[in-house]
Amino acid sequence: MSAALRIGMDIGGSKTAAVALDDAGTVVAATELGTVRGDDGVVDTAESAIVALATQTGVAPSGFASVGIGIPGQVDRGLGVVRNAYNIGVARLPLAQRLSARTGLAVSLDNDVTAAAIGAAHLMRLSGTVAYLNLGTGLSAGFVVDGVPLRGAHGVAGEIGHLAVDPRERPCPCGQRGCLETVASGSALRTYWPAGGDHPGRVLLSAIAAGDAEARAAYDALVAGAASCVRLLVLALDPHTVVIGGGLRLLGAPLVDGIRGELDLAAATSPFLTELELSARVQVLPADSSAAAVGAALAGNL
Amino acid sequence: MSAALRIGMDIGGSKTAAVALDDAGTVVAATELGTVRGDDGVVDTAESAIVALATQTGVAPSGFASVGIGIPGQVDRGLGVVRNAYNIGVARLPLAQRLSARTGLAVSLDNDVTAAAIGAAHLMRLSGTVAYLNLGTGLSAGFVVDGVPLRGAHGVAGEIGHLAVDPRERPCPCGQRGCLETVASGSALRTYWPAGGDHPGRVLLSAIAAGDAEARAAYDALVAGAASCVRLLVLALDPHTVVIGGGLRLLGAPLVDGIRGELDLAAATSPFLTELELSARVQVLPADSSAAAVGAALAGNL
Repeated sequence: MSAALRIGMDIGGSKTAAVALDDAGTVVAATELGTVRGDDGVVDTAESAIVALATQTGVAPSGFASVGIGIPGQVDRGLGVVRNAYNIGVARLPLAQRLSARTGLAVSLDNDVTAAAIGAAHLMRLSGTVAYLNLGTGLSAGFVVDGVPLRGAHGVAGEIGHLAVDPRERPCPCGQRGCLETVASGSALRTYWPAGGDHPGRVLLSAIAAGDAEARAAYDALVAGAASCVRLLVLALDPHTVVIGGGLRLLGAPLVDGIRGELDLAAATSPFLTELELSARVQVLPADSSAAAVGAALAGNL
Repeated sequence: MSAALRIGMDIGGSKTAAVALDDAGTVVAATELGTVRGDDGVVDTAESAIVALATQTGVAPSGFASVGIGIPGQVDRGLGVVRNAYNIGVARLPLAQRLSARTGLAVSLDNDVTAAAIGAAHLMRLSGTVAYLNLGTGLSAGFVVDGVPLRGAHGVAGEIGHLAVDPRERPCPCGQRGCLETVASGSALRTYWPAGGDHPGRVLLSAIAAGDAEARAAYDALVAGAASCVRLLVLALDPHTVVIGGGLRLLGAPLVDGIRGELDLAAATSPFLTELELSARVQVLPADSSAAAVGAALAGNL
């Protein structure tokens, strides 16, 4: 195998997905393992993923070209430090340096949603401006313009989940009220449809089919909130494509059809919105894509 | 004089400002004239501005390197066509072609707010990501990232004035209700403080000083709405700087201080917002800057 294989990794709250990409950007190996929380646990998890990919590809663990990591929290790319990644038990971790010291590999970090935006644009062969809307436990977005990610001044570009615009004004852990994340996210589903358990997205559609009115209300709020996000992304940045990603994309076609329906309904009263062709810009990331891992592998050079 | 002088022009509803820039991007001549409405009027106005700059600089009218024009409405840069620029009486005008045929010069068009964003970043020597918030008759934004404008897929990037997020739900000419433009714009001031006449921004502060309660209410709504726009721009794009521009910038320091005060008030309840240092990112475009004309001169190459 070529020594030019690049590793990309998506370290999430429960799982870590990792891939190896060849020069052409094709996934030649992939693995997934449980994320061990805490500073040492995260470094161990990342190292285990590299070893697994080495075994799969026949490349020595020290023989990869680079390692890119997409991770939640605030990422300082220059320092290779991640902060406030509470769902993996990390307050401040110089992950790039620690993993590099263990493996001898060049390691770079990126925000996981920015990495997913890069990966989605690559996997879905999208050009121009791409907005990636991450409907996961939280709500945020990532942007790629002509192949280049927009990261912003302080790494908070795309944090639209904390725009306080919902008239219900539900409290948000960020301290504000009415944030979009209190409406359109997995955590909103958990809070306002507690019967759905820890992974409400997996049982939401069947509960609605069984006539659960609370599930229906939670779903309708999710769809309306996600449509608001698409309008916001289009009016702010005018992307060619808005990709729906994140864990809730497993809701699949009904979610995307619902979002498109909301967008068309709003456009029906507004020639301005009609001309923007909002619903035609919406696509969903295929369910089996490791967009963040793929994007993380590519992100080091972008 | 050098033959490399570039002309930039900002064709507005009442006035057209034009400048000539040297190779270093310095303004070496400037003129301003009334805009004549309609297709022929706009072409005549642009030609007159070129002739005036030729007289000032001693360059023959055909001797300039290029002409860049910032103009309201929807701009197709590739075709050099502007559409739906109602405040200058234009439905569809191939302005680049017509002006080029008359003058022999290379002419390019850009959205006026995008041109202003480019010009503001240049004149204020701002690097990184710059968001330009145009508080004019309407409300919109323009973006420059590392010197390159973000124009979007269909030239509507920055149309945040038509995000429907205001709970008062006032009707907007776009067909929606509660658009940000119904709160934070010159047209909102005219509508909700009719005593202010056609140019309410010019008399607003003196009316407030004289105890006019309606003027006060309109001003407070303007400041709160502009602060919402800054939050939105920062959470969406994470710009290093948000420049307040447009006609209402003549409100000057009180407007900027008011916006900063609103931002700090909201941040006081939210550690998340506090960390974003919103108010520190806000600057105002100097009152005498021809940002859109300067940016239009530069925009052809960007």
